[in-house]
Parts: sequence; structure tokens; C-alpha cells
Amino acid sequence: MAEVAESGEGVKRERRNRDGEMMTAALKLFASKGYTAASVQDIADAIGVLKSSVYHYIGSKEELLFRIFLEAHEENEALMLEVEALDVSPVDRLRDYLNRTLLVALNNIERTGLYFRDWRHLTGTRRETLIRHRVQYGVFLRGLIEAAYAAEGVTAHITLKHVSSFIIGATNWLAEWYRPGGSDSPELIASDYAELAMTAIMGTAHAAKPANSRARRQSAI
Amino acid sequence: MAEVAESGEGVKRERRNRDGEMMTAALKLFASKGYTAASVQDIADAIGVLKSSVYHYIGSKEELLFRIFLEAHEENEALMLEVEALDVSPVDRLRDYLNRTLLVALNNIERTGLYFRDWRHLTGTRRETLIRHRVQYGVFLRGLIEAAYAAEGVTAHITLKHVSSFIIGATNWLAEWYRPGGSDSPELIASDYAELAMTAIMGTAHAAKPANSRARRQSAI
Repeated sequence: MAEVAESGEGVKRERRNRDGEMMTAALKLFASKGYTAASVQDIADAIGVLKSSVYHYIGSKEELLFRIFLEAHEENEALMLEVEALDVSPVDRLRDYLNRTLLVALNNIERTGLYFRDWRHLTGTRRETLIRHRVQYGVFLRGLIEAAYAAEGVTAHITLKHVSSFIIGATNWLAEWYRPGGSDSPELIASDYAELAMTAIMGTAHAAKPANSRARRQSAI
Repeated sequence: MAEVAESGEGVKRERRNRDGEMMTAALKLFASKGYTAASVQDIADAIGVLKSSVYHYIGSKEELLFRIFLEAHEENEALMLEVEALDVSPVDRLRDYLNRTLLVALNNIERTGLYFRDWRHLTGTRRETLIRHRVQYGVFLRGLIEAAYAAEGVTAHITLKHVSSFIIGATNWLAEWYRPGGSDSPELIASDYAELAMTAIMGTAHAAKPANSRARRQSAI
């Protein structure tokens, strides 16, 4: 019995490894050839199995693309929860979130590039799910910005949607120029970008009406 | 003789119109279906001619893509010359350039999106030319930023390459969310983005050493 159980575990483990290999190969191929040009046959060749074996794991090439994005989304969700749980000021929470998302984008640069070049190839409910996730990121970022403004007693001078899309755009564009192993470390780039973002976000807000907390604090001095 | 000349002109004019129609149809199809999925047959169908007629004007689908980008580059070059010729302060020149490039990106949003999604499909010297143009935009923007810093007596605190890529990324990302006819006008978006960019650029620079002009001016007071 013990042996059977072990071999059952072994099969499961092998299946998990093969699944991971397949996902890694798919990301590499989609990123280098483009989603349209890369075929399931290419993925099978890359991991040394028959095309029919790949279809053991997935129903379609589109499912592979979706699973890559879903993995990214799960990491982002975990990151959002971590940031929400931090015991820091709203301004520091915003800065920390920007720094962390920038590092995730840089450390997974192939996925970052694939995401923004090829998400359009998703269809039906997969596409709807992805769009819902994107909306969620924007809402989360705007929530952090609003909290930072409220804590500093300032109000947005320009449309908050424009502030967040500006920052998200700059971040996603990293995939267009950043190559791992270059002269600048991901940490340096993330810190420079976070500083640019924080300066743009906080610097375009203006002192709110006297009724806000900061003004009250100041007038009490 | 006069009649022959006129009909010669007429043929030329028709050729020019057809050429313009073809370029417009190509841009629309490349932008909506993606460059890979759109065929020369689609373009021929859109303007109501035979596929062979399209090949009268162009040698390949790739040539069409390149010509769309070349048109964009010529507009950008004209814009850069205009901005260089402005009789304003370096800070105002930088702000003006950002505002103008943002408006061009917004008013040609299909082309902006096509550019960053599909430039990779160019090969050989066409690809080299496009990369040279991209480098040129970065150099021009960094030149304007450096001039603005010098005029204000401040120095860059973070790598200038990161400042320019941050701004260029935010601008190009417009194609991911902006749709003409929405509630915000291109003018409002361009002005919001230019303010965010100017705040990020100028706000991350710090007062230079006392040897600079502004510090000298201040110490002379």
C-alpha cells in the first residue's frame, strides 16, 4: 500500500513538474515569437513531448495564455493584501505598493510584455475576467492615492483616472526597454520609477479647503 | 497639349488619392485586426480594388506598416523643429513639447497603438530605421529636460534615461485606454498628462551646487 501511495505521489509530482515546464515554455515562446506565431507544437517540442500530451494539460493555446495571466493576477492579489496589511502611513503604503509592483513587473519582464501585447487574443469569459482584473488594479491604486491625499490634507487637482493610467502606463512600458542583466538593477529602476510616480502623484495635488485635517492641525499650532 | 497635361495631372491626382485611401485602410485594418491577422486582400477589399492593384503601390504588407510609421516620424520631426524654434524658456519649451506630442498621440490613437504593438514585425533596414527614430525621440526629450534643469539651476537626482522612459511609456500607453469621443477631450488629457510629466521631471531634480546660475543669482540678492 505504502509503495502504491508513493508511486501515486510520484505521478502527481511528475504531472506538476510537467505542468510547470509547459507553462514556462509557453511563456518563453509566446514572449519571443508572439502569441499568434507560437504554436502548441512549438511548446511540445520545447519540453520534448508529443503535441497530444500538451492537450492532456490544456484545452487550447488560449487557455495557456489565460493561465499565465491568471498566475500573474494571483501574485498581484497577494501583493495587494500584503500592502493593505502594512502598519504604515497611507503615503508610505502607496510608495511601497508602487515599489513592489514595479519590482514584480521587472522581475517577470517577459510576462509583463506578453500581457500588454497579447491580452487581446483572449476571448469570451476569459477576456471578461482579465478586463475585470485590470479594472481592479486601477481601483486599488486610486484607493491608495485617495488615502494618501486625505492623510496629507490635499485634494487631486487633476482627474484621478488620468493619474493612475499615467503611472500604470509608465510601469507596463518597462517591457519595451528593460532587459535583465543590463547595467541598472531592477531595484534601482523600481526605486527611480517609484520616486517619479510619487512626485507626480503628490506634486499635482493641492492643499485642500481649511476644513481638512492638516489645515486644522496647522491652525491649532 | 494642355489637355494631355491635364489628364496626366488627373492620373497623378487619382494615384495620390488611391494611395491615401490605401494607407488609411491599412491603418484601420492593422489597428483593428492586428498586423499579423490583417491581409493585403483585406486592404484591397476595403478600398474596392483587386489585390494585384494594391501591389501597384507597395511591394509588401511590411512596406505598408513601415510607411505608416514613417508618416508618423515625419510629423514628429516637424514637431521637434517647431518646438526648437519657439522663443520661450527651456521649461516652457519642454512643457510645450510634451503637450504637443501628447495631442499627436491622442489624435492619432490607432497609429499610436499600432506602433507599440506591431513595430516588431518590421525586419532588416526598416526595423533599424524605426529603432533609430525611437532613439532620436529619447535623445530629443532628454535634451529638453537637461536644458530645463540647467535653466532652473537644478540637477537630475535620478538617471535621465529612466525619467524619459517613464514619460514616453505613460504617453504611449494612452492607446491602451483612450477612445475618441469619450467624456474627456484630447486637450484635457494632454494637459493633465503634461502636468503629471512636468511635475515628475522637475520635482525629482534637486538644487545644484552653488556654482550654478540660480544659486549665484540668489546669493547676489
